Amino acid sequence: MADMRDKTLEEWMAERKAWVETALAEDILPRPDERPAALSAAMRHAVEAGGKRIRPVLCMGCAEAAGGSAADALFPACAIELLHSYTLVHDDLPEMDCDEYRRGRLSVWAKFGRAAAVLAGDALQALAFRTLAHTPEKRCGTLARLVAAFGEAGTGVVRGQVEDIAAGAGPSRDVVDFVFEHKTGDLFRAACLAGAIAAGAGDGVQDALARFGLSLGLAFQIEDDLIDAAGGEPAPGELSCLRVMDEPAARAWIDSATAAAAAALEGLPGPVEHLRGLARALAARRT
Amino acid sequence: MADMRDKTLEEWMAERKAWVETALAEDILPRPDERPAALSAAMRHAVEAGGKRIRPVLCMGCAEAAGGSAADALFPACAIELLHSYTLVHDDLPEMDCDEYRRGRLSVWAKFGRAAAVLAGDALQALAFRTLAHTPEKRCGTLARLVAAFGEAGTGVVRGQVEDIAAGAGPSRDVVDFVFEHKTGDLFRAACLAGAIAAGAGDGVQDALARFGLSLGLAFQIEDDLIDAAGGEPAPGELSCLRVMDEPAARAWIDSATAAAAAALEGLPGPVEHLRGLARALAARRT
Repeated sequence: MADMRDKTLEEWMAERKAWVETALAEDILPRPDERPAALSAAMRHAVEAGGKRIRPVLCMGCAEAAGGSAADALFPACAIELLHSYTLVHDDLPEMDCDEYRRGRLSVWAKFGRAAAVLAGDALQALAFRTLAHTPEKRCGTLARLVAAFGEAGTGVVRGQVEDIAAGAGPSRDVVDFVFEHKTGDLFRAACLAGAIAAGAGDGVQDALARFGLSLGLAFQIEDDLIDAAGGEPAPGELSCLRVMDEPAARAWIDSATAAAAAALEGLPGPVEHLRGLARALAARRT
Repeated sequence: MADMRDKTLEEWMAERKAWVETALAEDILPRPDERPAALSAAMRHAVEAGGKRIRPVLCMGCAEAAGGSAADALFPACAIELLHSYTLVHDDLPEMDCDEYRRGRLSVWAKFGRAAAVLAGDALQALAFRTLAHTPEKRCGTLARLVAAFGEAGTGVVRGQVEDIAAGAGPSRDVVDFVFEHKTGDLFRAACLAGAIAAGAGDGVQDALARFGLSLGLAFQIEDDLIDAAGGEPAPGELSCLRVMDEPAARAWIDSATAAAAAALEGLPGPVEHLRGLARALAARRT
């Protein structure tokens, strides 16, 4: 691997995104002709919808920041994307957000039916853990920590979603904090923690990168709310931090979370320039 | 632990069932006041519905047959029951089997709503893997094999369910074989294989107990179809082996699967009397 500092942030991200997408499409997702073909198609549709693949890029970047390589974290990176994908498939269901489209394509339930969407999501979650089991263990006990981190994120993301649905358009500040920490933060935290664990990092580095991930997830979610409202009001029925604070307060919150993320990167054994750049780019994104 | 041969099959099963139920209720499931309480309640409702806990009993029994102790397999046993429970919660959903009742109580969706049932099932699957991560490793690499076995069962059970729904009341023999192997067999197989792995067994013993579990699951499912039809026809729309064979052929199939299960127990390092008895009892059950 060439010196990563030679690459722009965009090149560095694109490279890791391509590694994850190739591994998912060629080695991890069921082949299109695997029986039952309808399940393979629904699972592939869910994962191939694309996006920036921020969580797996973070996972590999954190392995590098912990002194390992991106390759150390390839399986956890793919696993976190599978876990994230399953949550989107289930969130889109008619009984949840009832979204017919995701990133300009039909959502899984709209294309394949409701039962298929429940089942494809279920299979994606199982496949996430199955993929995690392929992670090479640098030390005995590494996989137990990885599975625990993913299991905690897997239950946490559901806890956040349940509170989100229950609160709807009338959240208290406390509910916003809980939903952001769990629905969004837990997956970002697990992505970064998993990168550190897969790289063979000790407890201190693991804790620092977990904090980095959680802070970054928080900034990402606040920014998401600002983008969704696009200068106006949150969409009807949607939980948004703008229901409990104004836009300047939300921007200040992003800044403090981004600063906390940057602080967590101090003193790590590997290169952190691109993670720092990614944190800045997420805080400044407008789409 | 007293010599297990002093116990009747019923005592031996009841003891293991109690261990699993106590661990699930007291240490593994979220406390009733864990936030959000509605999610904890739905998860507990799903798991506390009861039943014979055959899969976890098999898991612990296979650890013993492999030369280890039931305690070695306590976490995998709880994990397999969580995995099984989540599949029931999702199978009962209106978009799948639309069952309002399970074992005489309201099903999770009927009591807590459809969104809550999707999410409680999702959280139970994550909790299954999180629980698995607590298994003490007798050798380095044990957990990777456990997670792989559970991940394979987790995707397999969905593959079986998708074929089941697609075939409905008009399955071919080939579809019946596929659905039985995956929808039912994969969880029985994983339960038994996980017991062997957790006990620290080598490949030969692992393979034998995996075969035992798969054969037993097959016999269990055929027997289930016979019980559901209760001397008459299968319920409308239900996949059943009785759609592709008559009752004597189904009984002969149970006998050959039970014989294969018994053969797989030959030459194991630990006691197998109760597993043998359990296989006989399952083949002869009428409820």
